[in-house]
Amino acid sequence: MLTNSISVNKKGNLTIGNADTVELAERFGTPLYVFDEGDIRKNCREFKNAFDEYYDGNARVLYASKAFSCKEMYRVAHSEGLGVDVVSGGELYTALSVGFPAQMIYFHGNNKTPDELEFALKNNVGRVVVDNIYELKTLNNIAKEMNKRADILLRIKPGIDVHTHEFIKTGQIDCKFGFALENGEAFEAVELALKEDNLNLVGVHCHIGSQIFETEPFKLAANVMIGFAKTVQNKLSAVFSEINFGGGYGIKYLESDDPVSKAASVKALTDAVKEACQTENYPLPTIVIEPGRSIVGASSLTLYKVGAVKTIKDVRTYVSVDGGMGDNPRYALYGADYEIVVANKATLPRDFTATVAGKCCESGDLIQEHTKMQKVEVGDTLAVLATGAYNYSMASNYNRICRPAAVMVNDGQARLIIKRETYEDIIKNDI
Amino acid sequence: MLTNSISVNKKGNLTIGNADTVELAERFGTPLYVFDEGDIRKNCREFKNAFDEYYDGNARVLYASKAFSCKEMYRVAHSEGLGVDVVSGGELYTALSVGFPAQMIYFHGNNKTPDELEFALKNNVGRVVVDNIYELKTLNNIAKEMNKRADILLRIKPGIDVHTHEFIKTGQIDCKFGFALENGEAFEAVELALKEDNLNLVGVHCHIGSQIFETEPFKLAANVMIGFAKTVQNKLSAVFSEINFGGGYGIKYLESDDPVSKAASVKALTDAVKEACQTENYPLPTIVIEPGRSIVGASSLTLYKVGAVKTIKDVRTYVSVDGGMGDNPRYALYGADYEIVVANKATLPRDFTATVAGKCCESGDLIQEHTKMQKVEVGDTLAVLATGAYNYSMASNYNRICRPAAVMVNDGQARLIIKRETYEDIIKNDI
Repeated sequence: MLTNSISVNKKGNLTIGNADTVELAERFGTPLYVFDEGDIRKNCREFKNAFDEYYDGNARVLYASKAFSCKEMYRVAHSEGLGVDVVSGGELYTALSVGFPAQMIYFHGNNKTPDELEFALKNNVGRVVVDNIYELKTLNNIAKEMNKRADILLRIKPGIDVHTHEFIKTGQIDCKFGFALENGEAFEAVELALKEDNLNLVGVHCHIGSQIFETEPFKLAANVMIGFAKTVQNKLSAVFSEINFGGGYGIKYLESDDPVSKAASVKALTDAVKEACQTENYPLPTIVIEPGRSIVGASSLTLYKVGAVKTIKDVRTYVSVDGGMGDNPRYALYGADYEIVVANKATLPRDFTATVAGKCCESGDLIQEHTKMQKVEVGDTLAVLATGAYNYSMASNYNRICRPAAVMVNDGQARLIIKRETYEDIIKNDI
Repeated sequence: MLTNSISVNKKGNLTIGNADTVELAERFGTPLYVFDEGDIRKNCREFKNAFDEYYDGNARVLYASKAFSCKEMYRVAHSEGLGVDVVSGGELYTALSVGFPAQMIYFHGNNKTPDELEFALKNNVGRVVVDNIYELKTLNNIAKEMNKRADILLRIKPGIDVHTHEFIKTGQIDCKFGFALENGEAFEAVELALKEDNLNLVGVHCHIGSQIFETEPFKLAANVMIGFAKTVQNKLSAVFSEINFGGGYGIKYLESDDPVSKAASVKALTDAVKEACQTENYPLPTIVIEPGRSIVGASSLTLYKVGAVKTIKDVRTYVSVDGGMGDNPRYALYGADYEIVVANKATLPRDFTATVAGKCCESGDLIQEHTKMQKVEVGDTLAVLATGAYNYSMASNYNRICRPAAVMVNDGQARLIIKRETYEDIIKNDI
């Protein structure tokens, strides 16, 4: 099976974190997001431990909470000693609402509003990752008014073009995020930041893409970023104490996917940073990384109840479930891949080909097309694997369908972490 | 300008329904959905009046509320004498919550849950549009338990392949919705429905696609559906009193778009139905149509505040706004087209080319690429036109960004119809 946390019990039912998924579906209803806390914590530790081993722990691992943001995830990340990155006032508000230490919060985004910047500074977030000149000046003004000095990183586009889906390529120059290196924007931004009285430039940040399976792009990024740091040291006598390499660590969506391990990714990155620093004679910076998907993505699944099964002869079989693009828009958006298992028939062979459709009134509302699963019928419980990242977080009320509940499982015990929406919730803001 | 409702006032600001959009943005904040009630009502009347003129009013116009569902839209549709179609328990709940007459509600969907069917029957909805055999049997059983007879239509795939975006083609056989004509499924479904004691088969339904600009596909649909009705009459001695041709009436997103008028669409459809009925010697059925986008889509716009404007030399200019794919995912999903106007510079020439980016932490979070607008700078108010359909209804809290407020404008007067979400709303269901 796809992850350590997923197995099959004596009843022949699929389990996650030793909890029977068929029982979870009965107890909490469907659709249902299920997260394996043990596996999530293991992922956090793999990153942390690798930095301890390969970089004397001179690192910060930030959970990129946009992957799955809710109160409980901030609690889990904090208890594992991770920081978090947030990308909006809403994520920041959620983190602060459970007492997440503000100094361990990094605030990202290509268009933070003045209100959001003020909110962040008022609460003393650890770093604001500044995206553009307008933000740099706005932040400096707000900090001045508060009589504060904001610790910042600058977001740099290192010009690395990772071969992945177009929507999730962020390191190249044609991108809405950050300052480009190759045309001098980044250097100018550093010069400006160093001149501002109410900003403290701690270092730089880059993010080269998402769902990256190799180590080579991270090594390239290390070389580029240390090279830039050296240029800044030479020309402006400023040293970056921190370099943030963002996220992008790939996970296994399909059986055939073969991402490199977290430890190997960290080793490749730290080796490259050490080598570049030695070559350039640059002091070793604190390394920051921001894994999101690789913390929660594969440690979870979504459970659905099967409704109509429609076999159109010589065409295909449509299996309709009680959720869809509302709770998982990733197939509609990116043609994203998932493995699907009939949870109550998990021991049977996956030799039936079908298209899983949602219940939205839209032809494109599909979860996966022409995919293998066990022979399925009305009333079965369907598990879509590895839905922890960017499913709940991107969920909508399209068709005014209530967003599902989420539960966290730990060694067989399940607890609700997000309540299912009700019809009352849906009309709550209607006048 | 794109619609009758959009103009420019003496201050040089863009107006909608005679309200100054710059003032609306200041008063209600941004992002903001703005709807022109007068224009929406005009659209309702155009459909109704055309049926009065061309078909002696033997018709029902249903507002397809999935395009934009909120309490106020059901009130408006009802006061114009329209029925509505709903596609989930949530939409049904919203309609009923403002006292919408249940008999004028049609319930759609490819995978209605038993709970939803029970909810619909309990409230005596006008029609259940049955999608598949499983639903047919489930509905019959539920009706039996309630000692009721449910008025139903059967959803038919007429096998018409409209040339539009793949995601919004729904009339062809390879589609999750309904019963196919060409392989006999539809006829078998009719036979089954006629045998069930607790179902009353009133007629059939088809929906051939979305954003259709010509009349030809609707004429084809009329021929196919009347032909099928005649076959049913011949072989099973059953007559359909109602034929529902769904929606799909295209609107003008771009200046260059040239959809046929509502009246011309209705005339083409009614002419084709009359002709086919005469040819087949079939009694004229009540015609039902379900316009959604063509009622609300072009009667609205979304207002944003411009943040960072980033010109990357020899690449492009990114204009970042305070919303994005959270409030309008249609560009990310479909590459949908929109016209964009700088609302506070509406008299200036639209000779500046830019890409409008949202504030989500995702490269694909774009509203429109390489599009013309007035020369734009930080603090400007941007209007994205024709966002009334499938924008609010598909909105998410991606990045935990609050969903915008919506206002309805009527001859210069604006009132809030959906309250802006708050951070408290966002964490409300978190435990």
